[in-house]
Amino acid sequence: MRIAVLGTGSVGRAVAARAAELGHQVTVGTRDVASMRAGDRAAWFERHPQVSLATLPEAAGAAELVVNATNGSGSLPALTAAGAPNLAGKVLLDIANPLDFGAGFPPTLSVHNTDSLAERIQREFPQTKVVKSLNTLTAELMVHPRQLADGEHSVFVSGDDAEAKRIVTELLVSFGHTDVIDLGDLSTARGTEMLLPLWLRLYGRLDTAIFNLKVVR
Amino acid sequence: MRIAVLGTGSVGRAVAARAAELGHQVTVGTRDVASMRAGDRAAWFERHPQVSLATLPEAAGAAELVVNATNGSGSLPALTAAGAPNLAGKVLLDIANPLDFGAGFPPTLSVHNTDSLAERIQREFPQTKVVKSLNTLTAELMVHPRQLADGEHSVFVSGDDAEAKRIVTELLVSFGHTDVIDLGDLSTARGTEMLLPLWLRLYGRLDTAIFNLKVVR
Repeated sequence: MRIAVLGTGSVGRAVAARAAELGHQVTVGTRDVASMRAGDRAAWFERHPQVSLATLPEAAGAAELVVNATNGSGSLPALTAAGAPNLAGKVLLDIANPLDFGAGFPPTLSVHNTDSLAERIQREFPQTKVVKSLNTLTAELMVHPRQLADGEHSVFVSGDDAEAKRIVTELLVSFGHTDVIDLGDLSTARGTEMLLPLWLRLYGRLDTAIFNLKVVR
Repeated sequence: MRIAVLGTGSVGRAVAARAAELGHQVTVGTRDVASMRAGDRAAWFERHPQVSLATLPEAAGAAELVVNATNGSGSLPALTAAGAPNLAGKVLLDIANPLDFGAGFPPTLSVHNTDSLAERIQREFPQTKVVKSLNTLTAELMVHPRQLADGEHSVFVSGDDAEAKRIVTELLVSFGHTDVIDLGDLSTARGTEMLLPLWLRLYGRLDTAIFNLKVVR
């Protein structure tokens, strides 16, 4: 599959490397390709020659599946820069969380309760099939879940399009996820985004990000 | 221990019955004792003769530990009716969630993100040691956790007073809980209250309330 990963942070790099490792054709989209080739992350791209680098519109335009791995506060601007026509008809796997660090740590949520970042993105890009997932665990576990308890923990998908959720679920299973729970339509992303305050407190308490929730039933 | 359980819903009755079974001296506090003895729930009290029934101030006044098992929307009025002097110096185990059913199902949260019901209660009753717990699972599992996966799942405590959290933790362990995670001060209750939207969606999806989260680490 041709996958565009928008965002060059830890989430974007983890997803890009893992998808490339699994044989997908991966392009990372970024605002400024030149500075990315010269900057701090240049070494990472040198170590991952199978991952291409392109502008946001180029990356999205060439892809079948687009991954939103930008910061929550930058997601709508980045997707707007990628361009609605380049996203139209495509599956958008949205991993971003609407964290607001304006008042320090722990961050609060800039959208919550009666709306979610995923729904905002969907409203802004109605031709795109937004699927929220992977936003409830740390980057390393998103793509290598088996390293913790042999994958005996849960991940959620939310979205309005059943076929798009099927495609994302298949990708998650190929990453190693064993328990992908389809919560329902995209409004259920409110629930997973609102999990972040608990996640952040657990992170502080457990002194590691290598943990996840398992829905025991 | 002398325990007052404020609230006669499924949570209040579950906690009252279990605490009495474990040998505690339990009084359920309610606004209207006479109608409780005559109404729908009279049969329950007849079947649990070891659980006393009293007014909110009487129940709270005689207790060492008070359990807030009222609906979130009615918690502050009920605690006000119980009376600040009757709650002063005591541990208050707050199980309520600030669910707002004003717009139907699923409910939204009336407090969230930068505040929580637990913190509101603490501000209103500064002499009381509020500990948030048990609000992330169904009544039956609060008090009989071993019936699901032999108790292999997690429950959280949040509070500003270490000794109060110790007392609540001991009670939870006596109920059968095996993994009680101390999240930190009372502001961490925002995280567990904000888990409700996900809990409610899982409830809808799994078609049972007999599930819980395990923090796998």
